[in-house]
Amino acid sequence: MSKKVNLSLDQVYDLSVQILSKYGLSDAHAKAIARVILAGERDECISHGVYRLGVLAHTIQQGHVSKTAEPKVTIDETSIVKVDAQYAFSPLAFEKGIEQLAIKTKQVGIAALQINHCYHFSALWPEVEAIAAHGLVGLAMTPSHAWVTPAGGNSPVLGTNPLAFSWPREHAENPYVFDFATSAIARGDLELHHRTNTDLPDNVALDKDGKVTKNAKAAIDGGSMLTFGGYKGSALSTMIELMSGSLIEDLTSQESLKLDDGNKCTPCHGELLFAFDPSKFGLGNISKSEASAEQLFKSIVDQGARLPSQRRFEARKRSQEKGVFVSEHIYADIQNLLK
Amino acid sequence: MSKKVNLSLDQVYDLSVQILSKYGLSDAHAKAIARVILAGERDECISHGVYRLGVLAHTIQQGHVSKTAEPKVTIDETSIVKVDAQYAFSPLAFEKGIEQLAIKTKQVGIAALQINHCYHFSALWPEVEAIAAHGLVGLAMTPSHAWVTPAGGNSPVLGTNPLAFSWPREHAENPYVFDFATSAIARGDLELHHRTNTDLPDNVALDKDGKVTKNAKAAIDGGSMLTFGGYKGSALSTMIELMSGSLIEDLTSQESLKLDDGNKCTPCHGELLFAFDPSKFGLGNISKSEASAEQLFKSIVDQGARLPSQRRFEARKRSQEKGVFVSEHIYADIQNLLK
Repeated sequence: MSKKVNLSLDQVYDLSVQILSKYGLSDAHAKAIARVILAGERDECISHGVYRLGVLAHTIQQGHVSKTAEPKVTIDETSIVKVDAQYAFSPLAFEKGIEQLAIKTKQVGIAALQINHCYHFSALWPEVEAIAAHGLVGLAMTPSHAWVTPAGGNSPVLGTNPLAFSWPREHAENPYVFDFATSAIARGDLELHHRTNTDLPDNVALDKDGKVTKNAKAAIDGGSMLTFGGYKGSALSTMIELMSGSLIEDLTSQESLKLDDGNKCTPCHGELLFAFDPSKFGLGNISKSEASAEQLFKSIVDQGARLPSQRRFEARKRSQEKGVFVSEHIYADIQNLLK
Repeated sequence: MSKKVNLSLDQVYDLSVQILSKYGLSDAHAKAIARVILAGERDECISHGVYRLGVLAHTIQQGHVSKTAEPKVTIDETSIVKVDAQYAFSPLAFEKGIEQLAIKTKQVGIAALQINHCYHFSALWPEVEAIAAHGLVGLAMTPSHAWVTPAGGNSPVLGTNPLAFSWPREHAENPYVFDFATSAIARGDLELHHRTNTDLPDNVALDKDGKVTKNAKAAIDGGSMLTFGGYKGSALSTMIELMSGSLIEDLTSQESLKLDDGNKCTPCHGELLFAFDPSKFGLGNISKSEASAEQLFKSIVDQGARLPSQRRFEARKRSQEKGVFVSEHIYADIQNLLK
């Protein structure tokens, strides 16, 4: 096992802001991104933690992403809050839209947050957790780059297309949250397998000839990933392309990859989130709704099964007490970004 | 192969109405149900076709389902259309709510249809197809009976919890539609395997001791099904319990199975549907949204992969030309219902 560098949460945040500022991001963008990098590292989602700073630095250096654009929020008579990120990174756009999303949702029970024209690198769970913090149910999805082959096919069309969901739990420490890639493996994990030269699990990737491979390099170099769950996962991934690509008039994963033109930048596309107000659904007795959900969680946990995100919440607790432990290898890469 | 009985679509509908009326359903309920039985048989979804009439007859005979209750529609200032089915079957409740759902959706871009207190036996695709027929994107989900074990567990908590989605395609013969059970196998298919005494596929069911089995009887008698796609499918299925059970203050699959009390009736619970107006999402150029979706479909189809529901749409075409072919065995069972 490689050595680790112990950093406090404040150090992770400050280091992230420092690097992003050095690469020219405005203070508002650097801080919004640092908050999600911190959340990723804190929850031991390694591929979304400080490791990601290198990818961001590379993307910024390509010169396409806006370093300073202020997200433009449009509110109208519909239940759709629209935020144009104006080709900057997405976290600030989300932060600018979430309050309005919560307001709209509490008015009529259900609303959407449509983010357009953003460079998107972050996990979706910090965002659905933010929705849950408003006492609302959250759902979020994005396309990515066309790295995933649809069921029955041999050529990548779909993105890793994550789907995230949150359910607020007033009397529990954390909300119920899941956030999974509809690819059989997350792109970040595939990249980590590549970096660390370790075998992929079975049946998660194809090589350039459309044959199943355990070699991460073969999957990355002209190959592709499979969806989870066969044709059902493939259908779900297609839904995510349609909803968070076509419906919001932004790029699909194919279009986003084409735009990237081999530069291996963070994908540029849109994102779609929904919020639902439990006090507006149902039949007027929200405590019944809460009790029903808690009984469901209990039935799962009592038989020794785990709720999703538990590993993450446990990591969060550890990190809040002892800080994070970054591999020396990744830490060295980050330090290089400051040179 | 067993012999088949050829029936016209009109004959399927009339036979269904005749049987349901004989069992005491009001004209409105008999006809609404006959429309979905017809759709199932026509599209060769055998387990949702005339075969299902036997299950309905059994459910009616248990005396719990209302044969005549008129669905009660509540419209208020929210974007949630609420229909109380008053413990009758669900199809009439859906028919009573769909127009209002479309109206609300076209006003603000997104709306929900919450159906409570219904006996639910039908596939969801006829309903999301009806939403697509309004030019809207549709999403539907329901719990069922707790026949499915969560990932990492050994005891059933979740239902087969179907998820259905539709995307309207103005210039294509049919919308993009999927409708899949989040269980690894549909309950109707499991029952058909039991009836026909054929082996189950690998890794779809557990016996009463929590061991994987290919024996449908072992899965039905105290055993359970697995979810599709491991822990991701399990998370999705849990979301469906929360949304179409807890959120709408209706029964979860556990509660529904408990209510059934071993009577093997059609599950009694709620249903939740959403509709999205493509003309309200996006950036004002709906033809761009349409072109993007069509390009996505083309990229899937051009590599020899299939869109979901294609088998069903082909069956529909055949049935519209030549009628349906019901197995002699099932036909005999149906004729017995008329005695």
